[in-house]
Amino acid sequence: VEQRDAGFIRDTMEGVNPADISALLDEVETDEARYVLDVLNNEVGAEVIEELEEDTRKEFLEELEPQEIAQYIVEMESDDAVDIINDLPVKTREEVIAAIDDPESAAHIQELMRYDEDCAGGLMAKEMIVANINWTVIQTIDEIRRQVENVEKIYSVYVVDDKNKLQGKVSVKKIILSRDNTRILDIYDSDIIHVETYMDEEEVADIMRKYDLDAVPVVNLQGKLVGRITIDDIVDVITEQAEEERALMSGISGDVEEDDSIWAISKARLPWLLIGLVGGTLGAWAIGFFEGSLERNAALAFFIPLVMATGGNVGIQSSTLVVQSLANRSAFEDSISKRIGRMFLVAIFTGVVLAIISFLIVFLWKDDQTLGTVVAVSLVCVVMLASFMGTATPLALDKLGINPALASGPFITTTNDILGIIVYLAIANLLLP
Amino acid sequence: VEQRDAGFIRDTMEGVNPADISALLDEVETDEARYVLDVLNNEVGAEVIEELEEDTRKEFLEELEPQEIAQYIVEMESDDAVDIINDLPVKTREEVIAAIDDPESAAHIQELMRYDEDCAGGLMAKEMIVANINWTVIQTIDEIRRQVENVEKIYSVYVVDDKNKLQGKVSVKKIILSRDNTRILDIYDSDIIHVETYMDEEEVADIMRKYDLDAVPVVNLQGKLVGRITIDDIVDVITEQAEEERALMSGISGDVEEDDSIWAISKARLPWLLIGLVGGTLGAWAIGFFEGSLERNAALAFFIPLVMATGGNVGIQSSTLVVQSLANRSAFEDSISKRIGRMFLVAIFTGVVLAIISFLIVFLWKDDQTLGTVVAVSLVCVVMLASFMGTATPLALDKLGINPALASGPFITTTNDILGIIVYLAIANLLLP
Repeated sequence: VEQRDAGFIRDTMEGVNPADISALLDEVETDEARYVLDVLNNEVGAEVIEELEEDTRKEFLEELEPQEIAQYIVEMESDDAVDIINDLPVKTREEVIAAIDDPESAAHIQELMRYDEDCAGGLMAKEMIVANINWTVIQTIDEIRRQVENVEKIYSVYVVDDKNKLQGKVSVKKIILSRDNTRILDIYDSDIIHVETYMDEEEVADIMRKYDLDAVPVVNLQGKLVGRITIDDIVDVITEQAEEERALMSGISGDVEEDDSIWAISKARLPWLLIGLVGGTLGAWAIGFFEGSLERNAALAFFIPLVMATGGNVGIQSSTLVVQSLANRSAFEDSISKRIGRMFLVAIFTGVVLAIISFLIVFLWKDDQTLGTVVAVSLVCVVMLASFMGTATPLALDKLGINPALASGPFITTTNDILGIIVYLAIANLLLP
Repeated sequence: VEQRDAGFIRDTMEGVNPADISALLDEVETDEARYVLDVLNNEVGAEVIEELEEDTRKEFLEELEPQEIAQYIVEMESDDAVDIINDLPVKTREEVIAAIDDPESAAHIQELMRYDEDCAGGLMAKEMIVANINWTVIQTIDEIRRQVENVEKIYSVYVVDDKNKLQGKVSVKKIILSRDNTRILDIYDSDIIHVETYMDEEEVADIMRKYDLDAVPVVNLQGKLVGRITIDDIVDVITEQAEEERALMSGISGDVEEDDSIWAISKARLPWLLIGLVGGTLGAWAIGFFEGSLERNAALAFFIPLVMATGGNVGIQSSTLVVQSLANRSAFEDSISKRIGRMFLVAIFTGVVLAIISFLIVFLWKDDQTLGTVVAVSLVCVVMLASFMGTATPLALDKLGINPALASGPFITTTNDILGIIVYLAIANLLLP
């Protein structure tokens, strides 16, 4: 395919969706990808670049001149343009912006670059249709026709006053169905949900999900309409959130995938494995204190895995429940003391069930009532301790502004493993002769 | 608030978003909720019912007569209506459908009820704007005005031929901007992405996410347009997917939340804890085989937690990477042998790093070269074994049509715990005097 046959490439790519071209270009060499993009027109090229994987895109843009990048940038919606510019080296950023012909879109991009990527301001785009509350329907339709060039899809038309303060919205449907001289004032809907520029992206996602919105207007601190966020960006936020959580839960740091290099995967995995190793060493050291008991009763070692595994499982379950309810915050939250109270009741109940079963197992197998009691009592204590750690850690991390999902990963398992061993052997030491 | 003051309730609820009313009603008694809904008009009431939590809604609908339910149902979009009807007891379902006045919407609901909830057919709604390819723009605008009553938001207008086969789409924007006598044939876009009724909901979500679609038309096996799926339903699918995965990864069965009853939470947690208990007992049984070695060298027991924890962590990391790449399937997938090959290289590399560090720890602490070698060699073997299990299990589950995320939960940890113990003690038995 890559025999530099421009006509052929153009013909085959005709009618192919840009997302599919991107998936193809992700797999070929940078110079071949560049050749294909040169052949395509800038509008399709811009869409293809948007859809490329981040590493491919970075490599690819390094090859281009700032002027070439600018040509693609002007074809993008302002929010996507800013995301791509923010990934460039600082010097190239300035050159690309300088190379943008259209002063309005350059100004939009510079305005959006001021916002942090993770807040509403960083997600929003400037392309939207705005109508003044004093206009008539015919004036608004004219404005729609004028603005429509920059807007890919029409969501609602936002209604503002003379000071550009957000007043409400009016649907295109209502405009089409109204007579030409009706005033916007008489048909607009003042009941509109908006977000503020500084809001966290996850908060924005929650709001849009709760109210089933396709798009939401963004206002600044003065209540002025500055942009809008569409649901496709929120889908990305939700997907990223899930991936981040999955990585934290499984102890993989950074953003690696199965098909990354062996070195990249190892580098992402080793930190948590080393923490596990340190945890294991601490566990070994804890067991060392009870060497005497173990020498007297080797069967004591048999149940170390059982106690450890139960502590680990309980800890992960508890923290996941808390992380989940932190993710779906509702207006009616129980107090922390009520949460801890319920957690304790669940822990006592499950702990007692597990204790009875484990006592029966140990008693029937080893015919040793004391060892059975040690295991059973340890399990109750470990379940309660692990539940407490699993509930308190994510709540504490959340208060500190750290992602609470960190608490459902290897961190909580390692901590609970060590605590479990200490509790088990300490109880054994007390109860065994 | 609940002093049966209808006027007051109506006034306060005026302008409040239905999603907020739902959040409020989730917290009050069923009969109070019913009273509030009676006061509201049916359209708002229907929205409130849609947004209620599932358990609250179920309790609430049990109180209503089929005729009352039908009044709310007719105000809903067909896909939401079907979701609610499907949750009713079979007898009530029939009564509600019989009580729907509008024969068209009753037919739509019955058609949609035929599809499985998890496939494209189960997600789609019938409300959409369809234009015949031979119409003119003016005819289409008339049709939009006529159909618009049933459609909450206008996405694209879908273009079909005389046999109702999907031919393409045309944006409302293009229709507004075209002259009245232009034919749809000349302005429509034949390049349209669609899904088929039988497609799995996760496949639909992947397609909509990949191509950044707000809505996608659904065709049946004959290529006829039967409905459309909108992005808000996909946001729900993605959220549910993430929650399901989280539950599987943490060993919580069923759909519980932190604020459910103690019995519900315990019931969801106990199954996996019991599996962990069985695993722990098998581990104890495995250690039992090596009782002699343990009695000769109690220090051997010290490193059981270290080996177990490493095996568990490696297994979860490996399976998460596989689950993640199964979730983001791309067209260019590596073969299974290549995946397993890369997994082995990563395992050898990380295993050797961990082995060197652990050898140093054991050697420096215990001054025992043989024990250090046992721990180091075991770690390499355990890392390789756990990587293999963590990679192969989700791939195998996926082939069997089971959610591969099951493999990143307690199942893989428990299996790897036991395997790790056996490998460690077997190697100790071989190498220690």
